[in-house]
Amino acid sequence: MRLSKEIGITVSKRDDLSEWYTQVVTKSGLADYASVKGFMVLMPYGYSIWEKIREFLDARLKATGHSNAYFPALIPETFLKKEAEHFSGFTPEVFWVTHAGNDKLGERLAVRPTSETVIYDSYAKWIRSWRDLPLLINVWNSVLRAEIKATKPFMRTSEFLWQEGHTVHADKEDTDSEVMRILELYRQLVEDQLAIPTLVGLKTEREKFVGALYTTTLEAIMPDGKALQMGTSHNLGQNFSKAFDIKYLGKDEQTHHAWNASWGVSWRLIGALVMMHGDDRGLVIPPRIAPIQAVVIPIPYKEEGANVIGQAKLTTQKLQQAGINATLDDREQYTPGWKFNEWEMKGIPLRIEIGPRDISRQQVTVVRRDTFERSTIPAATLVEEIRKVLESIQSSMFERAHRALKEAIREARTYDELKRTIDNEGGFVRACWCSDTVCEGKIKDETGATIRVVPLKDEKLFAVCVGCGKPANKVVYFARAY
Amino acid sequence: MRLSKEIGITVSKRDDLSEWYTQVVTKSGLADYASVKGFMVLMPYGYSIWEKIREFLDARLKATGHSNAYFPALIPETFLKKEAEHFSGFTPEVFWVTHAGNDKLGERLAVRPTSETVIYDSYAKWIRSWRDLPLLINVWNSVLRAEIKATKPFMRTSEFLWQEGHTVHADKEDTDSEVMRILELYRQLVEDQLAIPTLVGLKTEREKFVGALYTTTLEAIMPDGKALQMGTSHNLGQNFSKAFDIKYLGKDEQTHHAWNASWGVSWRLIGALVMMHGDDRGLVIPPRIAPIQAVVIPIPYKEEGANVIGQAKLTTQKLQQAGINATLDDREQYTPGWKFNEWEMKGIPLRIEIGPRDISRQQVTVVRRDTFERSTIPAATLVEEIRKVLESIQSSMFERAHRALKEAIREARTYDELKRTIDNEGGFVRACWCSDTVCEGKIKDETGATIRVVPLKDEKLFAVCVGCGKPANKVVYFARAY
Repeated sequence: MRLSKEIGITVSKRDDLSEWYTQVVTKSGLADYASVKGFMVLMPYGYSIWEKIREFLDARLKATGHSNAYFPALIPETFLKKEAEHFSGFTPEVFWVTHAGNDKLGERLAVRPTSETVIYDSYAKWIRSWRDLPLLINVWNSVLRAEIKATKPFMRTSEFLWQEGHTVHADKEDTDSEVMRILELYRQLVEDQLAIPTLVGLKTEREKFVGALYTTTLEAIMPDGKALQMGTSHNLGQNFSKAFDIKYLGKDEQTHHAWNASWGVSWRLIGALVMMHGDDRGLVIPPRIAPIQAVVIPIPYKEEGANVIGQAKLTTQKLQQAGINATLDDREQYTPGWKFNEWEMKGIPLRIEIGPRDISRQQVTVVRRDTFERSTIPAATLVEEIRKVLESIQSSMFERAHRALKEAIREARTYDELKRTIDNEGGFVRACWCSDTVCEGKIKDETGATIRVVPLKDEKLFAVCVGCGKPANKVVYFARAY
Repeated sequence: MRLSKEIGITVSKRDDLSEWYTQVVTKSGLADYASVKGFMVLMPYGYSIWEKIREFLDARLKATGHSNAYFPALIPETFLKKEAEHFSGFTPEVFWVTHAGNDKLGERLAVRPTSETVIYDSYAKWIRSWRDLPLLINVWNSVLRAEIKATKPFMRTSEFLWQEGHTVHADKEDTDSEVMRILELYRQLVEDQLAIPTLVGLKTEREKFVGALYTTTLEAIMPDGKALQMGTSHNLGQNFSKAFDIKYLGKDEQTHHAWNASWGVSWRLIGALVMMHGDDRGLVIPPRIAPIQAVVIPIPYKEEGANVIGQAKLTTQKLQQAGINATLDDREQYTPGWKFNEWEMKGIPLRIEIGPRDISRQQVTVVRRDTFERSTIPAATLVEEIRKVLESIQSSMFERAHRALKEAIREARTYDELKRTIDNEGGFVRACWCSDTVCEGKIKDETGATIRVVPLKDEKLFAVCVGCGKPANKVVYFARAY
């Protein structure tokens, strides 16, 4: 299977990010365009990265009392309409089922664009008393939202894999805690596992999730200077509980409407990973999230071939037994050079070469994917040294990305400065703002930039509102975004 | 949350299997009816059993070279029509998407009833040479098939969770091996994990998967004497490869159409589990597939309460550290008696009680869910003894079900005998058959029974064809089925 093509990436990341991205995604075997317009196929290698993301989140969600469940893929139109803002937010993108077999349905069914409504319909039946709270449920599924713009794998597709958490709480305080707990979990995933630094904070009223009280977000900056939302966690207030009649009998013997939170990350994280860390040879995967952390490649020479392959096998086993995801590439039909290219394309963090000279010196040769730095490691301390190198790759990938984030944050005190920076340099523009939604809308219309993040802690004001010149009361971060 | 209601099962399994089934499924917290007609919600407890099934299969599929991937949920009508038989088999059940937002689509899209067509469309692009084969991909997703009959959770719903494996091979021999390898894996899952004995074999031409060369199946018998298909594994021949143009360059330098296999099991397995093992107090889950294998319940007495709870905690930890899925129920708002009922309803294989007397005697009291047998285990040998009891529950559950299967197999030499047995006793009827599809169809029309299994190895003939009296050439198993 052409999981990776023999031919490498033909454009440089710097020259044409968009074309480079598409080539890396398809040639490394992450994803392929589906024949169905707007859709993509998550190929085995891409799926294995999604599984790593899923395992990380799933274990931590379970440890904090969350359970998984599954809800219907089709949602009656009346459900979506119960929360008016929510419906108007999603309806232009909904795929509508109108027939089952040859029979026209009495009511149109939406192919799930998100599950709030169908889930709350069940919660209303299940919840009776404060003893039933909090109810902490997560769902791993796919959602569909018709995309009319050009398909971009992982970033803009009419269907995507994600997780959606939907929780019910007794009061605002408990809901707030959940929202922040999940935001921190997402930060750990994105920063500590995917090595992508972010700005963390709130969305404005204008940019929040449709139907939410408030939305928190993590935003990364891509190499083209555009922001990318990595995950969101919402306090939905009592909006949906009122629409769906989710009530509980409190300790005070009174009936109360419950509070809701919802939160999600999608396979878009894989797209961010590609853009953030990839280079002209292909992907670069941070070790902690890499399905394969090290590939062992024997470099056989004539009569020493069998010995070299035997040693490569032993080395692989030793690493695997120590819990390192190592794989042996002993395919005979490919040259070592061909293998180097293929594994570089796939972004395996570490390549381990074993040739006759390595054996005679009781060592292995290792090459880091992030820096191409080559060094030798004594066989006697193999496991510990490999662990150290992998941790070093992880931290230097994060540090490099973190420098890029810091460099991408620029300040603007005037509207001209804001416009110029957005147009010429991109990135995040730190500016003061008056908190007026109309002013925010005007800036968006004129510059294409939106407020991506309102920091959780107020930052010190340094100017008047960048949009209208009136007194400002917040420091915020503007950017154009994906 | 009312994952389990305070009220137990109100009908006996023997008196009203159907009502009993519905009560057990909903009251134990496995599943709930969705408000969307024909759909169900897989609740957290039900999902945790599905996760166990999934973990078992997924690990073994990966160990045998299979990878997971994800393909689009919407499939163009033209794709489905490419394999004519396949299309006619599924079209009456397809949910059709006709609109995206307010726009009518140029072509109707089917909400995935099964993925052969959309997957083969990709495979045709990916496969070039014999080096790309076999291609072994599995998908965990949901499929939708409109059910007009009354909804029965896990058994008859318009959407169900399953896995669908789709593999590509160079020739018939390799395809046959895959089909049988998967059939054996399913047998291990169903018999060794779920403790449900089956008849394993082939489907007839009439009963095989639409578009397949042949279909293999595992069939269990439910307490009402109806057969239930537990899993199927198909050799699709070159039908789909020809329809979707999946070709490869062979070692012989010639172009060949590839061969395909497909195979799947669904959440129906959970329904079978309920029916097979449940009793009048609720579920009974075999230990190997139980998300919770043992529940530890402290029985506190007045001033000794703290000591009892402390000891219960220690016991739980000890079991968990030994890899046994134990959980502690130390909720204060419920009495031990209430807890016993709840965990019995949920079918936890083993209950461990710890009271003051147990502590003074350095023992724990255990109660088996399958037999309600009560015994004591010395604290000193806790882990080994609990392991033994769990294995004993697993094997005696299987043996009991196996006796029921053997008793449910009856023989018929004449058409009258067949009809009488199907009508009065149900179960499998072992009979001889002439291999004529017309004769088979007539039997189905007149008795409601179909040929569920044709044994893989010919069994010795003992009579003429049970349907037409002509010479028989096969021994087969008839039954009415779910």
